[in-house]
Amino acid sequence: MKRTLINQVSKNLGKKILVKGRVINLRRLGSISFVLLQDRSATIQVVWEKELAAKTGDIVELIGQVKKDERAKGNYEILGKEIKVISTSVEDFPFDLSKNELKLDLNNLLNYRTLSLRHPKIQAIFKLYDLLLKNYETVMREEGFVEIKTPKILGAASEGGANFFEIQYFEKSAFLAQSPQFYKQITAGAFERVFEIGPAFRAEPHFTTRHVNEYTSLDAEMAFIENFYDITATLNRVLKEMFERIGKEGKEYLALYGGQMSKVPKEIPCVKLAEIKKIIKEKYGYEVPQETDIDPQGERLAGRYAKEKYKSDFIFLTHYPWKEKPFYTLPDSENPDETCGFDLIMKGMEIVTGSQRIHLYSQLIENMKKKKVKPAGMEFYLNIFKFAMPPHGGWGMGSERLIQQILNLESVKEAVMFPRDVKRLSP
Amino acid sequence: MKRTLINQVSKNLGKKILVKGRVINLRRLGSISFVLLQDRSATIQVVWEKELAAKTGDIVELIGQVKKDERAKGNYEILGKEIKVISTSVEDFPFDLSKNELKLDLNNLLNYRTLSLRHPKIQAIFKLYDLLLKNYETVMREEGFVEIKTPKILGAASEGGANFFEIQYFEKSAFLAQSPQFYKQITAGAFERVFEIGPAFRAEPHFTTRHVNEYTSLDAEMAFIENFYDITATLNRVLKEMFERIGKEGKEYLALYGGQMSKVPKEIPCVKLAEIKKIIKEKYGYEVPQETDIDPQGERLAGRYAKEKYKSDFIFLTHYPWKEKPFYTLPDSENPDETCGFDLIMKGMEIVTGSQRIHLYSQLIENMKKKKVKPAGMEFYLNIFKFAMPPHGGWGMGSERLIQQILNLESVKEAVMFPRDVKRLSP
Repeated sequence: MKRTLINQVSKNLGKKILVKGRVINLRRLGSISFVLLQDRSATIQVVWEKELAAKTGDIVELIGQVKKDERAKGNYEILGKEIKVISTSVEDFPFDLSKNELKLDLNNLLNYRTLSLRHPKIQAIFKLYDLLLKNYETVMREEGFVEIKTPKILGAASEGGANFFEIQYFEKSAFLAQSPQFYKQITAGAFERVFEIGPAFRAEPHFTTRHVNEYTSLDAEMAFIENFYDITATLNRVLKEMFERIGKEGKEYLALYGGQMSKVPKEIPCVKLAEIKKIIKEKYGYEVPQETDIDPQGERLAGRYAKEKYKSDFIFLTHYPWKEKPFYTLPDSENPDETCGFDLIMKGMEIVTGSQRIHLYSQLIENMKKKKVKPAGMEFYLNIFKFAMPPHGGWGMGSERLIQQILNLESVKEAVMFPRDVKRLSP
Repeated sequence: MKRTLINQVSKNLGKKILVKGRVINLRRLGSISFVLLQDRSATIQVVWEKELAAKTGDIVELIGQVKKDERAKGNYEILGKEIKVISTSVEDFPFDLSKNELKLDLNNLLNYRTLSLRHPKIQAIFKLYDLLLKNYETVMREEGFVEIKTPKILGAASEGGANFFEIQYFEKSAFLAQSPQFYKQITAGAFERVFEIGPAFRAEPHFTTRHVNEYTSLDAEMAFIENFYDITATLNRVLKEMFERIGKEGKEYLALYGGQMSKVPKEIPCVKLAEIKKIIKEKYGYEVPQETDIDPQGERLAGRYAKEKYKSDFIFLTHYPWKEKPFYTLPDSENPDETCGFDLIMKGMEIVTGSQRIHLYSQLIENMKKKKVKPAGMEFYLNIFKFAMPPHGGWGMGSERLIQQILNLESVKEAVMFPRDVKRLSP
């Protein structure tokens, strides 16, 4: 007998079918048992009128007859005839999978991650994540981008910043990539449009709800741009398309979080960073501290402004200051204290950082000198600019932060299957 | 004026268009220059009848009129009217991009990788690689698999084998993942079918044409299987579908290597490892050394046998010996010296390793004891088996080896954009 997936049960009214899955709940009422069975497609109630050998958590194969019952969730149930326990628990499950909410605090949710992943509401996060990956891949290809995979082990910690993890690489030291920055620029010089989905590693000792030390970055780089608004326009189009498709395909997962996808405007509002700081001060009385470009509270208020003024969950902040941006960021030709660098804020949190890059060799070397960046270890990168690079730029987008903002999760760690932070290396 | 991509030129006969790209060749015949211009879509010849300011390697914007010319490659050319050099070289390019073949030895090809990527024949490798990723992602989703991303930084080097790279992780030691093995098993317990595309790190001091120390692994794990032939059958179906689609979509890239995609049989032949050794000895007079399960020469001859006997580029070798396989591999119930482990050989080289895993807690613990594997550091993994795991198994497929075998490349390093080996950490 061939297995029927639970989401196909309704097409088999009256028939005898074989289903396989996990017993996630069991209620006994006198001589009758009600079994809630879960497989990868859905859950269904099984009515069992004899002695039952299975218990909660078990993996079973079950043969039964499909019945219609208005009282059952989804209007169908199975009248169980034969059951075979394939695999059983040797310990009691530490929490109740049949409740709509797991009610574990973040620490326990993550400590028990290998088991909490069996809860339908937790699964919904990662099924939505799957849709995010799928639609990024698909839409980027539709936009003419080529998918690349670049090395995560680097010979030098050269990109700027001290937040690199060091590796013992045979007889040498090496470093884990913070981003595919150099490689996506190099390949944009050959393929014009490239994207990568890969891990990024940051040795930042953060304890926040928006940082992890290993995350999955959705990167892109595009050449032959006129200016950096070509980048923001492409990203705008990609996000709009992605969000619409995820909204359709992910309806049932979004519903578990009482939400839907944000509407991405056809033109996401674009405000200069210096300008938004003034607006925030005037409208909300908050002054962004001098020593930072913008802080989390500033981002929240920028998000609030976007919502109030433009009814938008998104806002581009542009022209980040020269002194805060890496050496490869193109300075603004009209005001060299500012750059063609931008962030995208969604619901008050940065989810994308991007910029147009310097593409002329002499300008790049000059900018490095001004910033006191040493070329050691990045000769392979600087070298490409000797051989004519097209104007180009791109972005890095935090995939888990996107999910966090879509589902309004309190911590980004809820959106990472097995998160890594300063204290957490397991599971 | 809006940019026209070069592959759209033929649709603009007689019209004046704007193209952008790189000059990859330049010939001057008296007062006329012939410019070969490359963009992300194609190359085209531009005829220029005046003084020309551009040189080979330059990034240019060019306005010209589309003409038909039987002598031109692709039957169309552009009669150039205006040209603007956007970006120019400050040094002479180290080799000639206009030749059909680059003729660099492997070491130079890789040393110059940032520039050799601009050659159309090298680009074809990575455009085909893009198609490989695309079609793996697509077909796996069609088969009901959920895409996951699992951590590459591990708290313990627990999976077996000593070939782990060590990281300094804040105050602790950590390790780079050799594979997502534990995580894909854990998630198969929740989602039934999962796949991952991600980097795998192997600290093996190999100097071969088939090893790199960082590669991109196409992983999968599936639950509720009857036996391991469910895994090989799924993989067979996935590969067949992928190969057919890549064959259609990648025709022009394959043509540059004088090839086409192998035909994947509806049922890839399946031979026990012990059996193939006998066959190889009888037919080809080669004895696989005692101390290994199978060596490269054995794989080559297994491939030859598959071709001669079954006209197949593929052959599954099954029932790998218990002593050679990791502790989680399910022993064969009929012969405990063998396992439900298999390799897939393509054109005489292993491209996939897979197996059914042990899913019962007691059996797993017993097998670990027999193999003298200590549980330290993998409690999070062992723990899931206490809570009823379904029968499951999966595979890991080397994406770059697949490309190597499809295009008959001499070294797998040609199929990695920026390969890492014992000596190579740059570019």
